[in-house]
Amino acid sequence: MNQKLKVVVIGGGSSYTPELIEGLINRYHELPVTELWLVDIEAGKDKVNIISGLAQRMIKNKGLNIDVHVTLDRRLALEHADFVCSQFRAGCLEGRIRDERIALKYGMIGQETNGLGGFANACRTIPMTLDICQDMEELCPDAWLLNFTNPSGMVTEAVLKYTQIKAIGLCNVPVIMEKGIAQIIGADAGEFIMQVAGLNHMIWARKILHEGTDKLNLVMNEILNGHDPLVPANIPPFDWPKDLLREMGMIPCAYLRYYYTSDDIMKQEQAEADGEGTRGEVVKAMEQRLFDIYKNPDLAEKPKELEKRGGQYYSEAACELMASIYNDKRTVMHVNTRNHGAISGLPDDCVVEVSSLITKSGPLPLNVEPFPDDTLRLIQLMKEYETLTVEAAVEGDLVAAKRGLILNPIVMTGTVLDDALKETVRENLDYMPQFRWMFAQNSGVGRSYK
Amino acid sequence: MNQKLKVVVIGGGSSYTPELIEGLINRYHELPVTELWLVDIEAGKDKVNIISGLAQRMIKNKGLNIDVHVTLDRRLALEHADFVCSQFRAGCLEGRIRDERIALKYGMIGQETNGLGGFANACRTIPMTLDICQDMEELCPDAWLLNFTNPSGMVTEAVLKYTQIKAIGLCNVPVIMEKGIAQIIGADAGEFIMQVAGLNHMIWARKILHEGTDKLNLVMNEILNGHDPLVPANIPPFDWPKDLLREMGMIPCAYLRYYYTSDDIMKQEQAEADGEGTRGEVVKAMEQRLFDIYKNPDLAEKPKELEKRGGQYYSEAACELMASIYNDKRTVMHVNTRNHGAISGLPDDCVVEVSSLITKSGPLPLNVEPFPDDTLRLIQLMKEYETLTVEAAVEGDLVAAKRGLILNPIVMTGTVLDDALKETVRENLDYMPQFRWMFAQNSGVGRSYK
Amino acid sequence: MNQKLKVVVIGGGSSYTPELIEGLINRYHELPVTELWLVDIEAGKDKVNIISGLAQRMIKNKGLNIDVHVTLDRRLALEHADFVCSQFRAGCLEGRIRDERIALKYGMIGQETNGLGGFANACRTIPMTLDICQDMEELCPDAWLLNFTNPSGMVTEAVLKYTQIKAIGLCNVPVIMEKGIAQIIGADAGEFIMQVAGLNHMIWARKILHEGTDKLNLVMNEILNGHDPLVPANIPPFDWPKDLLREMGMIPCAYLRYYYTSDDIMKQEQAEADGEGTRGEVVKAMEQRLFDIYKNPDLAEKPKELEKRGGQYYSEAACELMASIYNDKRTVMHVNTRNHGAISGLPDDCVVEVSSLITKSGPLPLNVEPFPDDTLRLIQLMKEYETLTVEAAVEGDLVAAKRGLILNPIVMTGTVLDDALKETVRENLDYMPQFRWMFAQNSGVGRSYK
Amino acid sequence: MNQKLKVVVIGGGSSYTPELIEGLINRYHELPVTELWLVDIEAGKDKVNIISGLAQRMIKNKGLNIDVHVTLDRRLALEHADFVCSQFRAGCLEGRIRDERIALKYGMIGQETNGLGGFANACRTIPMTLDICQDMEELCPDAWLLNFTNPSGMVTEAVLKYTQIKAIGLCNVPVIMEKGIAQIIGADAGEFIMQVAGLNHMIWARKILHEGTDKLNLVMNEILNGHDPLVPANIPPFDWPKDLLREMGMIPCAYLRYYYTSDDIMKQEQAEADGEGTRGEVVKAMEQRLFDIYKNPDLAEKPKELEKRGGQYYSEAACELMASIYNDKRTVMHVNTRNHGAISGLPDDCVVEVSSLITKSGPLPLNVEPFPDDTLRLIQLMKEYETLTVEAAVEGDLVAAKRGLILNPIVMTGTVLDDALKETVRENLDYMPQFRWMFAQNSGVGRSYK
Repeated sequence: MNQKLKVVVIGGGSSYTPELIEGLINRYHELPVTELWLVDIEAGKDKVNIISGLAQRMIKNKGLNIDVHVTLDRRLALEHADFVCSQFRAGCLEGRIRDERIALKYGMIGQETNGLGGFANACRTIPMTLDICQDMEELCPDAWLLNFTNPSGMVTEAVLKYTQIKAIGLCNVPVIMEKGIAQIIGADAGEFIMQVAGLNHMIWARKILHEGTDKLNLVMNEILNGHDPLVPANIPPFDWPKDLLREMGMIPCAYLRYYYTSDDIMKQEQAEADGEGTRGEVVKAMEQRLFDIYKNPDLAEKPKELEKRGGQYYSEAACELMASIYNDKRTVMHVNTRNHGAISGLPDDCVVEVSSLITKSGPLPLNVEPFPDDTLRLIQLMKEYETLTVEAAVEGDLVAAKRGLILNPIVMTGTVLDDALKETVRENLDYMPQFRWMFAQNSGVGRSYK
Repeated sequence: MNQKLKVVVIGGGSSYTPELIEGLINRYHELPVTELWLVDIEAGKDKVNIISGLAQRMIKNKGLNIDVHVTLDRRLALEHADFVCSQFRAGCLEGRIRDERIALKYGMIGQETNGLGGFANACRTIPMTLDICQDMEELCPDAWLLNFTNPSGMVTEAVLKYTQIKAIGLCNVPVIMEKGIAQIIGADAGEFIMQVAGLNHMIWARKILHEGTDKLNLVMNEILNGHDPLVPANIPPFDWPKDLLREMGMIPCAYLRYYYTSDDIMKQEQAEADGEGTRGEVVKAMEQRLFDIYKNPDLAEKPKELEKRGGQYYSEAACELMASIYNDKRTVMHVNTRNHGAISGLPDDCVVEVSSLITKSGPLPLNVEPFPDDTLRLIQLMKEYETLTVEAAVEGDLVAAKRGLILNPIVMTGTVLDDALKETVRENLDYMPQFRWMFAQNSGVGRSYK
Repeated sequence: MNQKLKVVVIGGGSSYTPELIEGLINRYHELPVTELWLVDIEAGKDKVNIISGLAQRMIKNKGLNIDVHVTLDRRLALEHADFVCSQFRAGCLEGRIRDERIALKYGMIGQETNGLGGFANACRTIPMTLDICQDMEELCPDAWLLNFTNPSGMVTEAVLKYTQIKAIGLCNVPVIMEKGIAQIIGADAGEFIMQVAGLNHMIWARKILHEGTDKLNLVMNEILNGHDPLVPANIPPFDWPKDLLREMGMIPCAYLRYYYTSDDIMKQEQAEADGEGTRGEVVKAMEQRLFDIYKNPDLAEKPKELEKRGGQYYSEAACELMASIYNDKRTVMHVNTRNHGAISGLPDDCVVEVSSLITKSGPLPLNVEPFPDDTLRLIQLMKEYETLTVEAAVEGDLVAAKRGLILNPIVMTGTVLDDALKETVRENLDYMPQFRWMFAQNSGVGRSYK
Repeated sequence: MNQKLKVVVIGGGSSYTPELIEGLINRYHELPVTELWLVDIEAGKDKVNIISGLAQRMIKNKGLNIDVHVTLDRRLALEHADFVCSQFRAGCLEGRIRDERIALKYGMIGQETNGLGGFANACRTIPMTLDICQDMEELCPDAWLLNFTNPSGMVTEAVLKYTQIKAIGLCNVPVIMEKGIAQIIGADAGEFIMQVAGLNHMIWARKILHEGTDKLNLVMNEILNGHDPLVPANIPPFDWPKDLLREMGMIPCAYLRYYYTSDDIMKQEQAEADGEGTRGEVVKAMEQRLFDIYKNPDLAEKPKELEKRGGQYYSEAACELMASIYNDKRTVMHVNTRNHGAISGLPDDCVVEVSSLITKSGPLPLNVEPFPDDTLRLIQLMKEYETLTVEAAVEGDLVAAKRGLILNPIVMTGTVLDDALKETVRENLDYMPQFRWMFAQNSGVGRSYK
């Protein structure tokens, strides 16, 4: 990396981008970006132009010297890039909403990153991401790919297994946990080390080291007492089974409620879907309001309203990660990276989400002390689901897909799965070319199921 | 073992006992039983007397010299026993029916050996079995305990972990698979080796060795073509997802439908419960008819009607196992025994169901080739559920119970689990003294959750 | 297998062959061999003709109908074979003697199957065996290869890793242990089960099941009291460190003295080499005497003198193995076969020596209970040495060879190893074409060390 | 930790102590030690007084405010200590020399931390260290024990297994490697991360991250070209087998020559012993010269001569470790700590030497990527030797000792081991009370070998 410092954002028209811009502005002193490229597709042209305008106003407002480019030509943007942030949404919010509704229709939890919806999202997103990486291998082989496109863990696993690109997956869940913990223990970010481990959207805080002691029990007691600032805004509040929590010896992330309180979530989701709409539908309305705000030519900073959107801190994490790599800062961050033994009992080549020392050469995961047996079994199960889903997404292998989904605790099996899966693929066929063979004339016969 | 050969049956009043008698009679030439003790409890007095009468008529009819004793005094029976068959039902059929109804009420599969019902059954049965073993340690420490009381795997694990007794768990599922396979490949029992592995009610046939080749694919094709004689009579017919089956490379036992077709089973069970009754209710009616038949003083053989009962071959397996041990026959049988590395990826001290060479010193498991990853994850998950359930049953630890149940794929989690669990324990309190603390005055406070 | 039953012996001119002939004669009732083909190379022509003459006289003497063929054309012999016994010695006894002398010269134990000599033997033997298997794949793909060419474990591993041939490795060490144990416990062969496990020439008896109890301690005490009939005749008597043995809880095979009493063996070997000669030299003299005896046209049975030769029971094991496979006898034998989890802690695809149920489909290993940690570490180390040696032998990779030898406890490292290795390869170049590159002109430069 | 900051040095009379004093002086700005206690035993009284005098002059010379105390009363010193540095030598240099001479007499490598000498050292040192820890548990339970008494890995393992004390083991080997690497790549200490892993005196550099790339190959090439500044001064220069090194993909520490070039080391050692004396004898002479220098009342700084002593950087590492803990500095240091999965394939509770992030709560090991199989086997073997040696040292179990030593590649087995072991114990009986039973009258009979 030299005087030029080129950052490319795939899915630049995302409503989150202003947070990313703010993050880059705030870190300009240590991360002197010279070019910022916002890439989007034809369907996102209007949005990315609105974002670009806002970005330019924000940068100008601070008197910084960052060139902002907008393009639909991904390859043009990628050339000689230093960092590529992937935050696109394959199939747009409509795809997410469709996933949610199909899952609910079949009596299953409808969710963007897990279960049937997570599977659909992976199958739409992974092939596109691999295409991007193929371009990167040619145009910027040394660039870092920072992926925060969901399902972030599976997407990162696909990139690390099938391409040569240096990729790191990011998520805001650990960031939010860390901020909540900071609040509970009354410490600033840099003053303590929270060590998390698990899979994307399936992590536990294992240690909270502050002032020479582990404050995990202190934090646990606060949560048991009903004070839980560790939950993202886009996740409705809920009660942990307190007896479980007390014996766990670890702080579970909010997404673990899908495993520990599945039925309550299901009911809550169904009520929402019948009321204000699914999460995707709520987000869609919110996004429209946000873009109306972004359009305002007088706006030259990230609007407060974005913070209600729910996905905050993604971009902060991304900017901090870029700054840490660029400056070899050796901060401890929580990233999706190759396991390589960090979590005992999982394959070496799979991707896990673990606290890592961030160096100019990428993340060095901290060792994870062995998980309790029951937690390990759950993690192993979900990783196997993820690995089979990645395989299914890349190879269009429907049997791998089913073998994976059958393991997933929030997926029902049997006829209902067959039907839901068929509908999912059929409705997403434009985004899942790998499964087109299923609806070819000789499907049941020819290459059916590999 | 010398001239005396004493067999004790705990739960002698079971409707299955005539099959056991028949099995002993058929093997009298190699297993010359001198004393047969039928033990039951006060509540089963009438039944065991009916059984005893029939047994004596059957034995006399064949002109054999086996003394039949009936007693409610277990310790009297156990003294100097050689083999102890455990086939009692803790809480009787009423307990089973209650389990089924509670599970269904909360929207879960109601089943004798798995899920919430399996948990309840384990918590009723394990303490009683450990009591029996305590007596055995004193009165017949060298006797073999053949357990076919359900849940057979967990009960055997409890015995092997908490007592000194030599115990072997039995199940009719592999016997039925073997008979179905014999029919498909057109071979007699001794002419082929079916190797199974997994956990009780969760096994797969891994090899079918006949005439120097492995006929697994041949059997698989028959099943795919709709010819499936491997399913027990007490399990309604059902369709495997054919694509899964084809790729599995192993023949799953019928109980695996709970994992692969959970929703279909749930619907079927609900329909049955609303119609002819739950399985327990159907069995109860059947049993009453059977005992009416058994009473007939002219009956001196096992009546045909018993075969419709569903649990056949349990007793055949038990008799063959006794004969194999007694004569060091080195037959290959399928038993629940300590893992000790037989299935890689499971703890050494847990109990697995594996094909084993039966010697006078007990079973020597055949090595099990590594399972496919996804299957292994499911087995590991269920074994962890079982191990936590055994721990909960022995120690009255409700958090262990919940941690186990949460892992179980056919159990729902959250409030519904809390409620169902509470009701299960409350309704079974007479049979679950280990959980009585929960309803003591200071429950929530004192030793609650350990 | 039909009316024709064709057995091929590679290395038919071996002095052991009369034992094999006797074994076939004794089992003719259950293993009705129709054709016996003795294959050898030009250099062994005289010997194989002597053996063939003796074989024909032995068979005629018993009035049996087995056609004996002698040929130097291996492919002619292999066509449509049912069983192929491999018992050749690559490089003849001269090779063995050379190995022993080189090792001793450099201060290391000189031994046919372990250390530097084992490495040399593997590098001579494995390429030839793979050639034979290539012929078998073409000419008799369904035949069983029974390998008792040393180093039997590594040779079998090479065949199972690099060819499609069904191979089983045999050794007389477990047979001799079993016979010694039979003598101690006063039981006939079929009356007890000795279970061994480990690697070829590195096994431990883990269980000795007789009359319903494990007589391992009884046997151990006899050995501790100086009564050790488990040691092969070709291994000089020696003392086990009694304290070690007592705590081991397993009966080590005689070859384990190389690890537990390395220095004593070294001294003994050096004394022998300075006196009557190395083992290879002693054997060479013995063989010459044997062939003089075999030549006698009046001899029509296996001469007593052969029993002093030391390698007895190899052929008995081979014949029993053929009979067990042919008749699906389900005897328990001790064979080298693919691990597949039989010994926990070793790779699935490596070869181990374990007690197995012999079926018409080959061996089904009995599960091996976990080894004590220290023993396991030794086994893992030696298996890694073996696996690297196989790799070196197949690929001519000298660095793999060194990495393997460095692990071997009876090999010295540093300059002395470099020198000894170089001499070994140079002196064996005719038999180790895979290492010829080392002495090519551009060795140090071109493909040196891959 | 508050205004008082008390550092205790067990073995304060060591010739190394001036380096420690210098280290404390250099870090006084961040590690404001208020009290320094030098503890020694009666036999070391003169030495510790000399050291104390020098320490006071050095501190005064810099105008710092550190109280230096000298005492033979360990408990007095330990009270309310914050850091305890353990650097004593059990049995003094005489013990080390005796170990070396006994090993050489029996034809084995004589070495302070490995083989027979390492065993003797462990058996002398571990009981004393556990005594110290018992005092610490009472007098300063929250203090950190920084152990650099050899064998550092085994001593630390004993403390972590048998006491409640927070202990970290230190060694100068990784420090020297790091300094050598810094020289090769031309970088300052803080500018790159060297990640090492293995066991004490058995580590490999796995990564050398500098400027965003891994410079391991660059460093490897320098070493292959004969430029090796990674070797401690107390280890004579030697040649790695270059072909091995090239394929290793890791930089071995200097002590690994005991495994890769055992015979060369043996010869070198024997030549030295016959010439200038064993390493211990050389060190003894050197120490006498050093103390003559230390006595000089005009000396008020660490004399240059100490650097030739060989063990330099131990104290620097200790001081940096104290400063890092005290200030939560999150530096990456290379320490002996509980494995807990850091190195896959080793027990969780064993001690490994791994690069770790140093926090106020102690070390957080970086995850170690899986080792190549052959290296892992060697590490597993040596860890098993260490674990058995710790067990032997604590429990006086001679069979455990032998089982461990038999695994050690630099130890010969059989009669020679029995004799050497007996002599070792007999000659050290004053320091090895745990083995006194061996020489009690009823030894061979009563509790012999447990």
